[in-house]
Amino acid sequence: MKRTKVVDALSCTDFGKDINVRGWVRSHRSSKAVDFIALNDGSTIKNIQVVVDPASVDAETLKSITTGACISATGVLVESQGKGQTSEIQCKEIEIYGLCPSDYPMQKKGQSFEYMRKYGHMRLRTNTFGAVFRIRHHMAIAIHQYFHEHGFYYFHTPLITGSDAEGAGNMFQVTTLDLDRVAKSDEVDYSTDFFGKKTHLTVSGQLEGELGATSLGAIYTFGPTFRAENSNTPRHLAEFWMIEPEVAFIDQQELMDLEEDFIKYCVRWALENCKDDLEFLNQMIDKELIARLEGVLKDTFVRLTYTEGFEILKKAQEDGVKFEFPVAEWGMDLSSEHERYLVEEHFKRPIIMTDYPSQIKSFYMKKNEDGKTMQGTDVLFPRIGEIIGGSVREESYEKLLEEIHNRGMKEEVYDWYLDTRKYGTCPHGGFGLGFERLILFVTGMQNIRDVIPFARTPKNAEF
Amino acid sequence: MKRTKVVDALSCTDFGKDINVRGWVRSHRSSKAVDFIALNDGSTIKNIQVVVDPASVDAETLKSITTGACISATGVLVESQGKGQTSEIQCKEIEIYGLCPSDYPMQKKGQSFEYMRKYGHMRLRTNTFGAVFRIRHHMAIAIHQYFHEHGFYYFHTPLITGSDAEGAGNMFQVTTLDLDRVAKSDEVDYSTDFFGKKTHLTVSGQLEGELGATSLGAIYTFGPTFRAENSNTPRHLAEFWMIEPEVAFIDQQELMDLEEDFIKYCVRWALENCKDDLEFLNQMIDKELIARLEGVLKDTFVRLTYTEGFEILKKAQEDGVKFEFPVAEWGMDLSSEHERYLVEEHFKRPIIMTDYPSQIKSFYMKKNEDGKTMQGTDVLFPRIGEIIGGSVREESYEKLLEEIHNRGMKEEVYDWYLDTRKYGTCPHGGFGLGFERLILFVTGMQNIRDVIPFARTPKNAEF
Repeated sequence: MKRTKVVDALSCTDFGKDINVRGWVRSHRSSKAVDFIALNDGSTIKNIQVVVDPASVDAETLKSITTGACISATGVLVESQGKGQTSEIQCKEIEIYGLCPSDYPMQKKGQSFEYMRKYGHMRLRTNTFGAVFRIRHHMAIAIHQYFHEHGFYYFHTPLITGSDAEGAGNMFQVTTLDLDRVAKSDEVDYSTDFFGKKTHLTVSGQLEGELGATSLGAIYTFGPTFRAENSNTPRHLAEFWMIEPEVAFIDQQELMDLEEDFIKYCVRWALENCKDDLEFLNQMIDKELIARLEGVLKDTFVRLTYTEGFEILKKAQEDGVKFEFPVAEWGMDLSSEHERYLVEEHFKRPIIMTDYPSQIKSFYMKKNEDGKTMQGTDVLFPRIGEIIGGSVREESYEKLLEEIHNRGMKEEVYDWYLDTRKYGTCPHGGFGLGFERLILFVTGMQNIRDVIPFARTPKNAEF
Repeated sequence: MKRTKVVDALSCTDFGKDINVRGWVRSHRSSKAVDFIALNDGSTIKNIQVVVDPASVDAETLKSITTGACISATGVLVESQGKGQTSEIQCKEIEIYGLCPSDYPMQKKGQSFEYMRKYGHMRLRTNTFGAVFRIRHHMAIAIHQYFHEHGFYYFHTPLITGSDAEGAGNMFQVTTLDLDRVAKSDEVDYSTDFFGKKTHLTVSGQLEGELGATSLGAIYTFGPTFRAENSNTPRHLAEFWMIEPEVAFIDQQELMDLEEDFIKYCVRWALENCKDDLEFLNQMIDKELIARLEGVLKDTFVRLTYTEGFEILKKAQEDGVKFEFPVAEWGMDLSSEHERYLVEEHFKRPIIMTDYPSQIKSFYMKKNEDGKTMQGTDVLFPRIGEIIGGSVREESYEKLLEEIHNRGMKEEVYDWYLDTRKYGTCPHGGFGLGFERLILFVTGMQNIRDVIPFARTPKNAEF
């Protein structure tokens, strides 16, 4: 008999017909008169109740069906008497695919997230992680859908990069050299390495993305990105996913409009398409989750300059607000606590902060005429702080080259990048969104390791 | 004035209204009476014609607008008199964003693909590569759309892997060890490496994908994959993108149905959504392209076993067909020429080949009861050979463990994988599709380096 997914069985009202469901047992309660098996197949957070007459199944077999076992159950779909359930199955036949020994690590309810991280391969079978990864899927689909509808092309920038770019200290090296042999030699001979030179894993696809935007008009990347930072925090991963759209002929205002429209689209998509999972997380993980998501959609984001933001923070500090990192001089980098103060306490809604001091931002960002600030467009969110980092790019060949020299960077490393400014340069801009930061925001989870299936962090590359 | 994309300007029939377009000059022809500038902004393969009255623009300025320059043109949208064009612009004002020096590498038409690979950052501005990368985008969207519609979750498997899996010889090592220091020491101390052990870039997300499928029900991966093979061929990349769906409760017949439905969906999407680009490629690259794509949709794929295929090949060889690799013994691996003979010469349509000898396939594939063959489901395509490799997976803990031992693999490396069979195992299967192979098929391009923006191959990691 053809299988029906649990999500479809639960919404089916064709009572009286035979139906087959397959999945993993979430719980099994027995009494003399009747057994209740709650079955889940990952298609929804909800279980379907399989009602078994103990007389109809061999007693030993029935007893063997414990939490975690995988079964196929066939029976009649009936209207459920239970509260909050629509339908259940009066079981006629059970087939066991796989029993589950009692050392099943996801046996008990209410295990800590830290415990579950050790069983990353099994935590996927829990309610919380099912919800998180279904929402993660939905956010990825929303992102592709948004850009596709808006005429952006998905553009695959390389993961392995030969550019000895800035920040190489935080990069992973990629090599086919036999390190045991290297240890026995006196020096490293890169001519025998796979690419004939030193290569690393990318920290951003943006520079290559600009090549795409200045030819295809508008592109976005969505791929893995790497940082070899030795940061053991709930906010850092060594391997994470980034989205980096880049658009030709866009100015600072249009870029802000794009960012706001884009991120509201994602949040709206979650509210519209992940209702059951969000309700579960709202109940179990974060009671303010849904209200916070709805809050993002309600108002236009505040748009203010770094200088305005800095003045507000300075005033707040003078009025007695204590920051871990004191607000000192104009030109300092803002930290997450400052960003969150502005968003959560002062404005009580998301902010797009613009015109940061150039010296704290990247070399490719377009400077304002004051020579001190640049055309940045970062989006700051409640709970997260900076969720999007964006800017208009410097399109002048001469100014960009000067900035490269001023910062002591190597011109020859960027020759291909400079070519976009040399041959038919155009105004353009873009932004970057850390995918896991978005997922943290949308799920209410606290630790970034819990919103990616298999986290890579210092000393940890399991599975 | 707000910019209109070229694709929208060309389909607009609101003649007489003012319009602004921005893009790169593809050609500029001058005469005494009138100048014609063909402008492209990447939104379509087609250029919009900007008609300029030379009297209205400073002569030197007009002359400076050469191929590759980037401009903004404002004027009246008028119905075009030219054949095959719908609209053009009677230009009133031109703004130059960036001129293009005469050493612009994409100046000349008809450069070889080999030449253009050297200018990978500039080839994106040509007709052919514009078409290829717009189609690449569309195929990625089609894939996400298909799986989303069918209840699969996009699942991000890790890129950096600590599993010392089979085939590690063809893997890239990932490290933060300072190789210059390693060369000065006597041995490699992995305890000081970022992950505290030896790590590599993944060659497949399938094993982790099975963890997803056996909890979320149905997942797919779509991400970069790496092979450190020293193969300088038009079919190999060191870094490429793979799609690997994996489904719980699927049998061999259903898996074949899924593969056929999926790949037909992608091809149909291309025919329906990439018409202009396909027509261009059909004319310039491969005169049989569109016919070949339509051919795939026409018939049901032939389904036959390896053994049946082997017999056909043997018979063909006896009848005088010459193969580079002779068809010898049952059990031999088939090569691309054999697959293409069956598809292109014998059946003249795509094939799903099943039940290969287990010894030439991976350890995790489910064996048939004959003990010799397995439940494989590879799809063979014209021009490409194997485009999809699929199978039902072995769900028995004991049989899988036995196979791991028989092949001399290390059990402890696979303990997390074996857990899927230990705790509530379920029948499941899936397949892998090399994204660039699909793009080769759909674009008619010959060299895999020309269907990925920035190819990584031996001795080559530019940009």
